Amino acid sequence: MLSKNQLKYIQSLHQKKYRQQQGAFLVEGAKSVQEVLQSDFQIELVVATEAFYKENAHLTDHQRTPVEIASVGDLERAGTLESNNAALAVVKTKENRPLLAEPGEIALILDDIRDPGNLGTILRIADWYGVRKILCSETTADVYNPKVISASKGSFTRVQWWYGDVVQVLSRASKQTGSLPAVYGAFLDGDDVHTLAFGKSGYLVMGNESNGIRPETAPFITQRVTIPRYGDAESLNVGIATAVLLDNIRRVNAGQ
Amino acid sequence: MLSKNQLKYIQSLHQKKYRQQQGAFLVEGAKSVQEVLQSDFQIELVVATEAFYKENAHLTDHQRTPVEIASVGDLERAGTLESNNAALAVVKTKENRPLLAEPGEIALILDDIRDPGNLGTILRIADWYGVRKILCSETTADVYNPKVISASKGSFTRVQWWYGDVVQVLSRASKQTGSLPAVYGAFLDGDDVHTLAFGKSGYLVMGNESNGIRPETAPFITQRVTIPRYGDAESLNVGIATAVLLDNIRRVNAGQ
Repeated sequence: MLSKNQLKYIQSLHQKKYRQQQGAFLVEGAKSVQEVLQSDFQIELVVATEAFYKENAHLTDHQRTPVEIASVGDLERAGTLESNNAALAVVKTKENRPLLAEPGEIALILDDIRDPGNLGTILRIADWYGVRKILCSETTADVYNPKVISASKGSFTRVQWWYGDVVQVLSRASKQTGSLPAVYGAFLDGDDVHTLAFGKSGYLVMGNESNGIRPETAPFITQRVTIPRYGDAESLNVGIATAVLLDNIRRVNAGQ
Repeated sequence: MLSKNQLKYIQSLHQKKYRQQQGAFLVEGAKSVQEVLQSDFQIELVVATEAFYKENAHLTDHQRTPVEIASVGDLERAGTLESNNAALAVVKTKENRPLLAEPGEIALILDDIRDPGNLGTILRIADWYGVRKILCSETTADVYNPKVISASKGSFTRVQWWYGDVVQVLSRASKQTGSLPAVYGAFLDGDDVHTLAFGKSGYLVMGNESNGIRPETAPFITQRVTIPRYGDAESLNVGIATAVLLDNIRRVNAGQ
């Protein structure tokens, strides 16, 4: 059973301030908890219904993960999901280690993506298209927000992220001697992604939902790209645009 | 000012049952209301703040659209949006007229898309890629649901839809003499969309969020297609998949 203090602690992790203070975040729902138990994340505590625990004891017991059995009511009170009849996990956040795109690698740069749902979707898309590194501007939504974790459908266990000054990363990259990394970014006046010869290395920069790529980031875009429009919608959602751009990059890469 | 009866009537339109009974639905927020006022939809009533009305009187007055001025509080009480400081419109639903893909046209078939957010996103994507007709199975979410209208970002004014027996439509199409329309559908074992020679006519079928294309629809798919995966995510969201498929279809069409 959950103690009052445990309940209070778990509820505090709904908020970024306490996640940062405690160095911990929440993973909720059967599928996501199963995935995180099989990942390299460090688990503090699993709160589970008896049924979930019985079915998944092999995932908790060999690591000696602390497990509290709880009712569905307690689970829902503790977590953020409207309905959760399985489990939640309290998981240690990871160290914020710098990430760079290696030669032969495409990394994502998120330049002020504010919506947690969009960020979660982008994690899932990155995972589908084999993008393993995501560099986030400090103004990008917190990846440990329960909505991000939930929308990523387990993909948060397979991609790495770093939060920091992405403009500085790009500025340094632009001063590299030798082969400079390509920096792709979506603009209205870019080259058509259906015919562009994308390289295999570099960064794809995705900008803010309303304002696009920030003025301070824009000068470091070495290749402006555009998804051609055949109808009348004003724009595509940033998650959709990320998927279409990565799909085109991988198509061209595979054909090379 | 809104009368009690008006308030009650508008609130009843949150529910499908009353939308069907009344033949009316809600459009909410500044942008969507502006778009619907400029479309061929028939407007019953606009409820607007004084500020919105003043700025947009040219859109309502020449059509003699009835307008009620309301406070932000009343607007939010009447509608479904958490915050709405502009307007909502009560709009007549359209007749449910059958739609078919004409030669040279790609139409979408939604085979049991349940989530209103996904449906709204698909409307927006269809609008971006110039797809004008959407055939929906009877089990697909109601397009007049306020969440669909809102997620479509105004694209509901530029695409047409029909609800009915999509299996029968495909069955009839498959018995046509002469040139049969192509019917594309996403499966795990389909041909790679990056190298497939898509035609310019036919249907793209998108299946249910969890279960994919229904068993009764599957036999009518003439070309199974697959979005290649380069990482480990189990699946893509149906909205994302729709965008990637249409992007590949348009790319191939443009190159022909």
